[in-house]
Amino acid sequence: MPYFDAASSAPLHPVARQALQAALADGWADPARVYREGRAAPVLLDSAREAAADAVGCRPDELVFTPSGTHAVHAGVAGALAGRRRVGSRLAVSAVEHSSVLHAAAAHEAATGGAVTEVPVDRFGRVSSDGYDEALRPDTALACLQSANHEVGTEQPVALVAEVCRSRGVPLLVDAAQSLGWRPVEGAWSLLTASAHKWGGPAGVGLLAVRKGVRFAPQGPADERESGRAPGFQNLPAVVAAAASLRAVRAEAAAESVRLRALVDRIRARVPELVPDVEVVGDPERRLPHLVTFSCLYVDGEALLHELDRADFSVSSGSSCTSSTLTPSHVLRAMGVLSEGNVRVSLPLGTPEAEVDRFLEVLPGVVSGVRERFGVPVAAAGRERAASGSVPAEAVSTEPVPSGPDGGEGEGEGERRGKLVVDALGRRCPIPVIELAKVFGDVPVGGTVTVLADDEAARLDIPAWCEMRGQEYMGERPADHGVAYVVRRVS
Amino acid sequence: MPYFDAASSAPLHPVARQALQAALADGWADPARVYREGRAAPVLLDSAREAAADAVGCRPDELVFTPSGTHAVHAGVAGALAGRRRVGSRLAVSAVEHSSVLHAAAAHEAATGGAVTEVPVDRFGRVSSDGYDEALRPDTALACLQSANHEVGTEQPVALVAEVCRSRGVPLLVDAAQSLGWRPVEGAWSLLTASAHKWGGPAGVGLLAVRKGVRFAPQGPADERESGRAPGFQNLPAVVAAAASLRAVRAEAAAESVRLRALVDRIRARVPELVPDVEVVGDPERRLPHLVTFSCLYVDGEALLHELDRADFSVSSGSSCTSSTLTPSHVLRAMGVLSEGNVRVSLPLGTPEAEVDRFLEVLPGVVSGVRERFGVPVAAAGRERAASGSVPAEAVSTEPVPSGPDGGEGEGEGERRGKLVVDALGRRCPIPVIELAKVFGDVPVGGTVTVLADDEAARLDIPAWCEMRGQEYMGERPADHGVAYVVRRVS
Repeated sequence: MPYFDAASSAPLHPVARQALQAALADGWADPARVYREGRAAPVLLDSAREAAADAVGCRPDELVFTPSGTHAVHAGVAGALAGRRRVGSRLAVSAVEHSSVLHAAAAHEAATGGAVTEVPVDRFGRVSSDGYDEALRPDTALACLQSANHEVGTEQPVALVAEVCRSRGVPLLVDAAQSLGWRPVEGAWSLLTASAHKWGGPAGVGLLAVRKGVRFAPQGPADERESGRAPGFQNLPAVVAAAASLRAVRAEAAAESVRLRALVDRIRARVPELVPDVEVVGDPERRLPHLVTFSCLYVDGEALLHELDRADFSVSSGSSCTSSTLTPSHVLRAMGVLSEGNVRVSLPLGTPEAEVDRFLEVLPGVVSGVRERFGVPVAAAGRERAASGSVPAEAVSTEPVPSGPDGGEGEGEGERRGKLVVDALGRRCPIPVIELAKVFGDVPVGGTVTVLADDEAARLDIPAWCEMRGQEYMGERPADHGVAYVVRRVS
Repeated sequence: MPYFDAASSAPLHPVARQALQAALADGWADPARVYREGRAAPVLLDSAREAAADAVGCRPDELVFTPSGTHAVHAGVAGALAGRRRVGSRLAVSAVEHSSVLHAAAAHEAATGGAVTEVPVDRFGRVSSDGYDEALRPDTALACLQSANHEVGTEQPVALVAEVCRSRGVPLLVDAAQSLGWRPVEGAWSLLTASAHKWGGPAGVGLLAVRKGVRFAPQGPADERESGRAPGFQNLPAVVAAAASLRAVRAEAAAESVRLRALVDRIRARVPELVPDVEVVGDPERRLPHLVTFSCLYVDGEALLHELDRADFSVSSGSSCTSSTLTPSHVLRAMGVLSEGNVRVSLPLGTPEAEVDRFLEVLPGVVSGVRERFGVPVAAAGRERAASGSVPAEAVSTEPVPSGPDGGEGEGEGERRGKLVVDALGRRCPIPVIELAKVFGDVPVGGTVTVLADDEAARLDIPAWCEMRGQEYMGERPADHGVAYVVRRVS
């Protein structure tokens, strides 16, 4: 049963399981005690710290274990900001950071009134070092950048950004959650965070490395454990398993990264050939070896995940139609790419080639099945006109948009014929885009279709549809209810 | 090999081990995902939450899992204080709370300028509801009280204190870390915290229960997990093991509490008979079933723990001479009892009677061995005069104390003969008390011995020695170096 969601949580590595068993027998006592059970614990802890520091590329006394990658990020951001409070309270983050970084930024804004500067990304989801150069201000206390993106796999130019930060005297915190199992983070980073369950270690262990010389003031209540940077009884068996499995996956990383990269290349090349109206997103070259993401026009993400699950494939999605937040992934939004029918495939170590091939066999039928259910016949996908009549007649009108600042009052009959309005209010992704596609052939070249929608995904997906179709996106304006998105037919 | 330190960390319960194994196979995926691996996870999580809530005596939606008991305390204290920010920022805690509560209180004082009121305890380490009644002010936002003390086992009158808090409209947070494995906490508490590794669950799991209707504003960055009260990827296998083992230990609790209570009663009765100059501390009746603590005069705690370890007994100590902080346990200090030669025995479930009997056989020889090394012959222990001459002659003088506000200038020769000064500056616990005992017989009844010491433990142990010996402690005054403690011989 192929599990293709390693980026959410990798299956427990056999070495992690063995180390956990052994440490449960020897490492359950309090490392602060002097008796024999307690004496075993600090020995195990020291050796785990040395192994983890070696994999990170730092000194053991620069690294502490936290209860999760999220805790490492929260503690790292808060401590680094507080350590440079005198400089200022501005934080620079890329627009595509993991939610734990964005939550830390939001908490910083809310609690201290500190400002957050967001560094934009290109269509591949990649920042530039110039972007950080512009974002850093005299009052910037800290910059954050992921080593590689968790949703689209794009690797960030960490070493270049670290150079910019160093020349500006700003510490850089690197969230290495997605990449640390593959290799150390290059460049002159100041703080680094990671999460064991992403590399096949157990849940319950994060890493926080703070380079010597970086000003750091731990926030919140502290105790004598983990250099005062991570309070609470250490989860020693899990820490031992985390360090052992990091070492083990690194030993496999060189060979596996070549093998999985070839499998991902196959998915990147074949999916657009096999499935019409697909956008493969993320940097095609500078990317994680095991991860690929694509979005499918006219597809409900939730339905797609369920159908893939029924076909035995476990994948993830950044579509709003699969989440409880009703908004598309902030990563896809920042990249400006299609979010509907989004699928992230992230292959665990050891994924057999045959599983990838079977995925490629199964995917086209799954996508076309979902499209059919939404009234987008397979044959029509890829054209501007859907054949089925699932749109209620009253949802399409040649009336002007009911109101709004640029409403079409006072236009003549001829002008009205070139203007269609589709009412998709109350309809969720992917319906607004499907409705747009269905009527688009009804307006002449030069005419416009206005889609009324209140689903947040439309803001991302209607422009993305225009980009994919070569049609002109003319912008949005507020309507009585929801938003009016205007598209002009240019071909 | 008898492990008698369950109060630090209980050995992993067999049920916890089994549940951990099973959940490592089924519960490693992200509970937020829709595919089969992810679907198993929330089912396991819900069922663990129901089991834990049932054991706590709250609703499942009132309980969240945290990465440790310490995290539960920190999050609970911060969230409850912030939830009642409009009322005020005063926090009331007992003087004998676990360090995690005191650290949370200190962080509250440091970060927000909030005030902390400490509620005193009696010589058994027990608070009174009147003590809380006096401590609560109009601006008190939160009160904290442990269910039972972690160092001396004394059970607190939680239900009575909860009533006082309720009548004054102040929420009460109960730290139930030491007692939850034995039984639910009675009374109308508002928040409750606990730690799985204290009851035989794995490390990495704490509980935080917040009753419906209690104002609670989680502090720091949050995410969508655990009701926004405990961010980060859930450690599901550990959570499952924690809940399963809590249920298992509760099933054994009634029988084991009777059995272990009898064993502890044996220790409480026999130790003072077998070992001279011992003070058994903590409430003899209202106490945890498995825990007993005593202190031995003229004994170095570190040496005692090492000798007991050599004799295969793993115990803990609140003596300053075994910790890196150079101060005696704040619990023993608040109780005003002897701290030197302190031993805490906390029996795990299933401790065989024979192990306790062997401990009672071994202990007298171990204590007398340590005392001999410090020049306190076994035969002399219990008398006011030590036979050996290990005190350097120059350390004892009939000179007045070199200086200080009440220094003895201008006294006559006759008065000087009734006044001895012992210089124990630079000497660590238990030396100052040993030196006092060695010379005490040299002053006539009515005369005084002044001990010069700079070890923090002397402040606690010299008055405790007077109490045990029926001599009069006359107080302390600052000296040129350290502090002068004055004792008058009354018999």
